[in-house]
Amino acid sequence: MANVTATIITIGDELLIGQTIDTNSAWMAQRLNEIGIVVERRVTIADKADDIRLALDEEIPRADIILMTGGLGPTADDITKPFLCEYFGGKLVLNEKVLEHVKTLFERRNKPFLERNRMQADVPDVCIVLYNEMGTAPGMLFEKDGKYIISMPGVPFEMMSIMTKEVIPRLQSKYVSDAVLHRTIITSGEGESFIAETLEDIEEALPMGIKLAYLPSPGIVKLRLTATGGDETQLSKELEKYQQQIADRLSDIVVVMNDIPIQELLGNALREQGKRMALAESCSGGYIAHLITQVQGSSDYFQGAIVPYQSKLKNKIVGVDADMLKEHSAISEEVAIELATKSLAMFNSDYCLSVTGQLSHGGEDAHIQKGLVWMAVADKDRVKTKKYLFHYGRELNKELTAQIGMLMLWKFITGRI
Amino acid sequence: MANVTATIITIGDELLIGQTIDTNSAWMAQRLNEIGIVVERRVTIADKADDIRLALDEEIPRADIILMTGGLGPTADDITKPFLCEYFGGKLVLNEKVLEHVKTLFERRNKPFLERNRMQADVPDVCIVLYNEMGTAPGMLFEKDGKYIISMPGVPFEMMSIMTKEVIPRLQSKYVSDAVLHRTIITSGEGESFIAETLEDIEEALPMGIKLAYLPSPGIVKLRLTATGGDETQLSKELEKYQQQIADRLSDIVVVMNDIPIQELLGNALREQGKRMALAESCSGGYIAHLITQVQGSSDYFQGAIVPYQSKLKNKIVGVDADMLKEHSAISEEVAIELATKSLAMFNSDYCLSVTGQLSHGGEDAHIQKGLVWMAVADKDRVKTKKYLFHYGRELNKELTAQIGMLMLWKFITGRI
Repeated sequence: MANVTATIITIGDELLIGQTIDTNSAWMAQRLNEIGIVVERRVTIADKADDIRLALDEEIPRADIILMTGGLGPTADDITKPFLCEYFGGKLVLNEKVLEHVKTLFERRNKPFLERNRMQADVPDVCIVLYNEMGTAPGMLFEKDGKYIISMPGVPFEMMSIMTKEVIPRLQSKYVSDAVLHRTIITSGEGESFIAETLEDIEEALPMGIKLAYLPSPGIVKLRLTATGGDETQLSKELEKYQQQIADRLSDIVVVMNDIPIQELLGNALREQGKRMALAESCSGGYIAHLITQVQGSSDYFQGAIVPYQSKLKNKIVGVDADMLKEHSAISEEVAIELATKSLAMFNSDYCLSVTGQLSHGGEDAHIQKGLVWMAVADKDRVKTKKYLFHYGRELNKELTAQIGMLMLWKFITGRI
Repeated sequence: MANVTATIITIGDELLIGQTIDTNSAWMAQRLNEIGIVVERRVTIADKADDIRLALDEEIPRADIILMTGGLGPTADDITKPFLCEYFGGKLVLNEKVLEHVKTLFERRNKPFLERNRMQADVPDVCIVLYNEMGTAPGMLFEKDGKYIISMPGVPFEMMSIMTKEVIPRLQSKYVSDAVLHRTIITSGEGESFIAETLEDIEEALPMGIKLAYLPSPGIVKLRLTATGGDETQLSKELEKYQQQIADRLSDIVVVMNDIPIQELLGNALREQGKRMALAESCSGGYIAHLITQVQGSSDYFQGAIVPYQSKLKNKIVGVDADMLKEHSAISEEVAIELATKSLAMFNSDYCLSVTGQLSHGGEDAHIQKGLVWMAVADKDRVKTKKYLFHYGRELNKELTAQIGMLMLWKFITGRI
């Protein structure tokens, strides 16, 4: 047995001019990996018949499955459906079930039902219709040379719904694939070169079928072990043996043995202790609160945040001493401590993280060094502070502040600092 | 004259297993479009020599320029550099300037300088080295059959630095391209079908070289006109004529005639009036504050936010009446109004937007209908409220809340509501 392979073809001028970032491919690849299907190539092309034809002619022989997204909407720039109909030698016929569904959606939204919407219910007579619960454009499954070619709309939540309910079950029943397993270790505190050096002998001794990859991102380096094989239980055991060996070697810098976002790691620690947290975010402008509330169920432990973006609100709302703000400036260890302890009291919380800094040039604190950030974590007994100097642009400095701040709170909560 | 064309090849297993979302390609495409270069294809492949070879063999004949990212790091899974060296028939030689730079970076970070880092200064003797100010892996420019093949690291801010400082100037001096121009109209309030219907005659009468595309996203539909041609001034004039014609037809639902995020539109309106705003975000959990503070210079008009994620904080910190919370629940018009007006006073602001809702199942308000969101906007004289029922998952409902909330505040500020 071996792995079933797939190519993802994304269609859309907006992807080629950079107006839209393709988040669909990553999501689809994850779902495919879960059932042992390996994505070997991804190709992005324009809304042009010739380009779609070339991509299909080239990619169909190379993979077992072709997943396509895009170009299925109701407007003139959407050409994928008529093209596929012609490519696979069919003709468009009205599908009553799809028609009913599209009509219902328009009724629910109180919008007029137009001829161009009715046309969304026309489907090639040579495909299996994949029902689109979330939108008006149905997915389509074609078969050629024993291979599946699947077309879905590019709107992310519509694609996700069709993948989950229609595509994955069909792929599972048609294909039997080797397993593809990943195990990740998240580290913080050293660069990828240093880690690679530390692991050199372990990496060289890895068996043929197991690959180690290094993925640096703001504040962390992820190590990913990947293996493919027929016996999933055995493979999983072997991967975890190497994962443990690596974690033992790196002990100090290992954060978690799982590919989860730091906000989830933090949430798990809080939930385990039955404790709650609050935030006083200045320079990060609500971003940490946003990340934390992306986790389903975060209201169990996240109480809220104050974002005193302008300096005097640190005094007016949080109660940081006005003279202290003047003497030390808003970006100082003293103010970080006051923000954390006063917000802890204001939210009546178990833990509080504060961040205050200057992420880019300009604003009230233009005299402060760009990239300087002070952070503090507090509970009712202890406070810890740390100073950082980030060397990048506004967005990346914000990302670093958020990731490192959440990690600092996690270390504080779990007794590591 | 015609357009110079490019293919983007992104290399990395993490892109094919979906561990990383490719944001680089969109950014690169935008920069290329600005100098008239059209991206016709994007291909994503694994860190495997055979796959890189196939991609180069196929793509070099098809485009004038090949831009590649990824696989240039210091670890064993990074194979792009030795592969390209062999592919273009060169050998690796030490580059003293790169070596000095890499050493300086390690000194600044107080990290040991390792042999594998020294090796990052080895470059093929058949390329032009593209200096990487932000990191340790240099970019490389190869020439073959009169075409440029450019390799850069996949770390976004490193790629961006090399593109801006090294790649774009070289492309501009080598290639003369027709212009590629885009003009966008952002609308809110109608679906793409209805808009397409309204514009049908205008769209049909567009000249050959001008294309209209529809891009629906949460809360808005973008209309994009694209044209290519030799005379940029003439082209721009013509595009703007059609842009105006479309805007006149759609008058009611046009938000802005420019492809800017809603947070920037809102910031511009506030700056014009010399006014400031605050936020009381409950269900959106800091996301709106995050979006607003992504805009450089937002501290001129954004004062701050309170995120009273747990219900009783709406009383304790913002001062919403406890009986009102009990009687109407936290997700009600009454509480949205109180949140907006009380926060307006707390921040001493000119405008305040409040949102309170139930984005997904569970939490304190599990009895409330999923997707129900109340919003209020207030200044010292007026309050406006609106109720929404969103039908999607947690993340998309959050996105809708943020986009629609910011649009509502913008309409309030500019006297549209």
